[in-house]
Amino acid sequence: MSKRALDVTREKSFPDWYQAIVRDGDMAETSPVRGCMIIKPWGWGVWERIQAELDSRIKDTGHDNCYFPLFIPMSFIAKEAEHVEGFAKEMAVVTHHRLKNVGGKLELDPTAKLEEPLIVRPTSETIIGDAFQRWVKSYRDLPLLVNQWANVVRWEMRTRLFLRTAEFLWQEGHTAHADKADAMAETMKMLEVYREFAETVLAMPVIAGEKPANERFPGADNTYSIEAMMQDGKALQAGTSHYLGTHFAKAQNIQYQSAAGQLEYCHTTSWGVSTRLIGGVIMTHGDDDGLRLPPKIAPRQIVIVPMLRDKPEDAPLIDYARALEAELKALGLRVLLDLKPTKSAEKRWNWVRRGAPVIVEIGGRDAAGNNVTFMRRDRLRDGDKVASHMKPRAEFVAGATALLDDIQASLFAEAKARLDGNIVTNIKSFDEMKAYFGEAAGDDEGGAFKGWVRVAWARPEGPELEAIADKLKALKLTIRNAPLVQDKPSGKCLFTGKPAVEYVLVARAY
Amino acid sequence: MSKRALDVTREKSFPDWYQAIVRDGDMAETSPVRGCMIIKPWGWGVWERIQAELDSRIKDTGHDNCYFPLFIPMSFIAKEAEHVEGFAKEMAVVTHHRLKNVGGKLELDPTAKLEEPLIVRPTSETIIGDAFQRWVKSYRDLPLLVNQWANVVRWEMRTRLFLRTAEFLWQEGHTAHADKADAMAETMKMLEVYREFAETVLAMPVIAGEKPANERFPGADNTYSIEAMMQDGKALQAGTSHYLGTHFAKAQNIQYQSAAGQLEYCHTTSWGVSTRLIGGVIMTHGDDDGLRLPPKIAPRQIVIVPMLRDKPEDAPLIDYARALEAELKALGLRVLLDLKPTKSAEKRWNWVRRGAPVIVEIGGRDAAGNNVTFMRRDRLRDGDKVASHMKPRAEFVAGATALLDDIQASLFAEAKARLDGNIVTNIKSFDEMKAYFGEAAGDDEGGAFKGWVRVAWARPEGPELEAIADKLKALKLTIRNAPLVQDKPSGKCLFTGKPAVEYVLVARAY
Repeated sequence: MSKRALDVTREKSFPDWYQAIVRDGDMAETSPVRGCMIIKPWGWGVWERIQAELDSRIKDTGHDNCYFPLFIPMSFIAKEAEHVEGFAKEMAVVTHHRLKNVGGKLELDPTAKLEEPLIVRPTSETIIGDAFQRWVKSYRDLPLLVNQWANVVRWEMRTRLFLRTAEFLWQEGHTAHADKADAMAETMKMLEVYREFAETVLAMPVIAGEKPANERFPGADNTYSIEAMMQDGKALQAGTSHYLGTHFAKAQNIQYQSAAGQLEYCHTTSWGVSTRLIGGVIMTHGDDDGLRLPPKIAPRQIVIVPMLRDKPEDAPLIDYARALEAELKALGLRVLLDLKPTKSAEKRWNWVRRGAPVIVEIGGRDAAGNNVTFMRRDRLRDGDKVASHMKPRAEFVAGATALLDDIQASLFAEAKARLDGNIVTNIKSFDEMKAYFGEAAGDDEGGAFKGWVRVAWARPEGPELEAIADKLKALKLTIRNAPLVQDKPSGKCLFTGKPAVEYVLVARAY
Repeated sequence: MSKRALDVTREKSFPDWYQAIVRDGDMAETSPVRGCMIIKPWGWGVWERIQAELDSRIKDTGHDNCYFPLFIPMSFIAKEAEHVEGFAKEMAVVTHHRLKNVGGKLELDPTAKLEEPLIVRPTSETIIGDAFQRWVKSYRDLPLLVNQWANVVRWEMRTRLFLRTAEFLWQEGHTAHADKADAMAETMKMLEVYREFAETVLAMPVIAGEKPANERFPGADNTYSIEAMMQDGKALQAGTSHYLGTHFAKAQNIQYQSAAGQLEYCHTTSWGVSTRLIGGVIMTHGDDDGLRLPPKIAPRQIVIVPMLRDKPEDAPLIDYARALEAELKALGLRVLLDLKPTKSAEKRWNWVRRGAPVIVEIGGRDAAGNNVTFMRRDRLRDGDKVASHMKPRAEFVAGATALLDDIQASLFAEAKARLDGNIVTNIKSFDEMKAYFGEAAGDDEGGAFKGWVRVAWARPEGPELEAIADKLKALKLTIRNAPLVQDKPSGKCLFTGKPAVEYVLVARAY
């Protein structure tokens, strides 16, 4: 095999390849704080683009951004734990508010112990619900539609950059409604916002659907997700939207006076996506040369590398490159002219690994002939060779926006073909499913590509569902969701033998 | 006195007035978590505008945004405490990572005690310095210029919304340089960015200068600030920029190989502004009718209130208002058409209290005559009466951008006149200064307006400086800074009698 820009291929080890891309693509790195990551400028630039694109969609659908406290009193969590089964308890707990110097050594000051411990928010339903309880008086105050961009902390035992970290960044939407119909409409509206955003902006095809009961957010009546297929076949839950019924409203007394003068409980929702999306982008679009970023989220869409040689001939080359940069910027594109004092070949591969959608290399002949030589990162190679293209400068500039659109579309098409082509629909028994997936590899081992399996489902609940979940768990499988868009089911539930009411997707997952 | 939109005036009680504006202007509220605030949509909208304007300036000066962990290992803080005198120790400390259910009660799980406590970042010099130590190898890596937007926590005993809260939001820039000259140039560049931003965007005139030694950031060689004068005469430190010398580099081993092949310590800087700026905007521009927002940071610059009467005549009124809204939005202005089902008088006063720069009221006669009736929030009243203006619609639209520019400029001019007119320069002794300031009022009592005093200063240090600081503290006074732009000093230092080398500003402060 010919040499690629990363020192490990997807085929050799998908988990190692993922780590290599995060590292060599300058996206993020581990920190000295267990499970917490440092997001580096290139990775942060991607998050800024994700925030900007999604934030405008959240605002366009009528939501206001706010900011709620980082800390949640333990009593709030305790109240929720009473109402909600399966409530996770792995959280960072603040118990003291001062350090003191004892003989030159810094220690906890025992006199500064908090009366009530504070929890670093793992999610904000309780603290926002407390505000809703004060803010909502009458049906005129509804719907109440807020969102916040924030950091949250969940104490995870096994962490992986972007995919599962103790601290992560996300947006969390929280809304209160007068009735179930309005709250369900909101839940589905935001699920659709996520689907459209993932497909249009991240070029990441997803399947939107409802989670089975055992995979619901604790306290939710219904949980919906978008699920994306990574290049190792595993599913990534990329966003969730929950209809919370009146559970939280009852626990927190979120009531309103109806037009008829009655006191009623609100119906609430919550929905979120996180920095995990960046992991999804990497595993959807990356190749053995590094990351490939969809132009809509690339911090720099076109990078210009002049082939400098530390000689007087450099000056006209830089002038030519600057003129090109200015023309492209005037189109509203995000352009970088890379003048760092390193070798141009090194710069080229640096931008290949980082996934800049278009890399322009300007040599003396380009400047002399008024041409532009460029690479498309989505189709970097022709066989093993790097494919570079030359165009007259005016033509390149005139077509630059369309070129980026084409890259965005081609990345989506490639991922969509993978998703559509790897959902197996002819599996009729648990044994067939077991044979299809084979032995589960360890978490860090990768394993052969296995797509998803679509099976008929009778929507069992309670102990019957738990038994199925356990059987699947032994094969490291989970039910991802029941797609919203699906054919009418035929035949019997693969697990229970009862008449099927829908299809669900079964897969290994992150 | 005639009735105003707030139930307390600045004159009656400046602290109560401040609280009223935060509450009735829908900016923020206290939360059930001690010292932490909830920033409401209108207040958050102001912060989003501040972020957007400042972030573009930070990027334009060559800085990259990143994100570093919320938590800092206690050992990092301990190492810094060894190197830095006066290091604050009031911090939130995480000691456990799990809760457990004991007989139906949620408690700390003693088996989930952290081996090393984690500190919720009060500022990030130590955790970012640790990354710099890994990232910087050679002079080619310098300068290293990063910034992050983040939440930080300092355990404050007395809190006041926006001005001093346990959790607050800020940006913190951190940079590493090859030598002192480059690091000092960066320190001064960012101070100037803050000055220009405060004056141009917040319409808040400030004085940029150097803090005396006793007011430096712990570990800094030089600390510079911008100081703004509030309407009660008190100073508000609105931003700081620190030259940290090699203190942090030595504590954290941030070294680089010079062009000559020597290992050298970096010179570092840090600089930040926070949500405190919002408090500054309120106390600079608010009046007894509520907030007055400079158009550049107003979430909505023009609010249109149609005078609806729940009658069929409402329909053409709404059409007319929508058309106006569309015309103004096409100019790139932030416009809101307020169609909430409340009375229009209530809406008017709501927007007055919130400080929308221009409030348009559309009645039947306006629509019929193709006119626009509007109020400028910066000049709301003519005597006691509300001053409303009428213009032909086309003329109003054509002049809307200029109108907003004029409001921005007039708010700045008003505040600038206050600052310039209230710096007393003829005080020659400590007793005169004491007589000028009079008795210090309690923190929440306000007191008569007292401007600042400019005095000659010999730049004393050590115990001599401490004694002066103590004398000032007894009068609740501090030295704010030595303005960068000042006349050559004459005469003797007011405190030491030694020949003066510069002037400093003395004031009460937030």
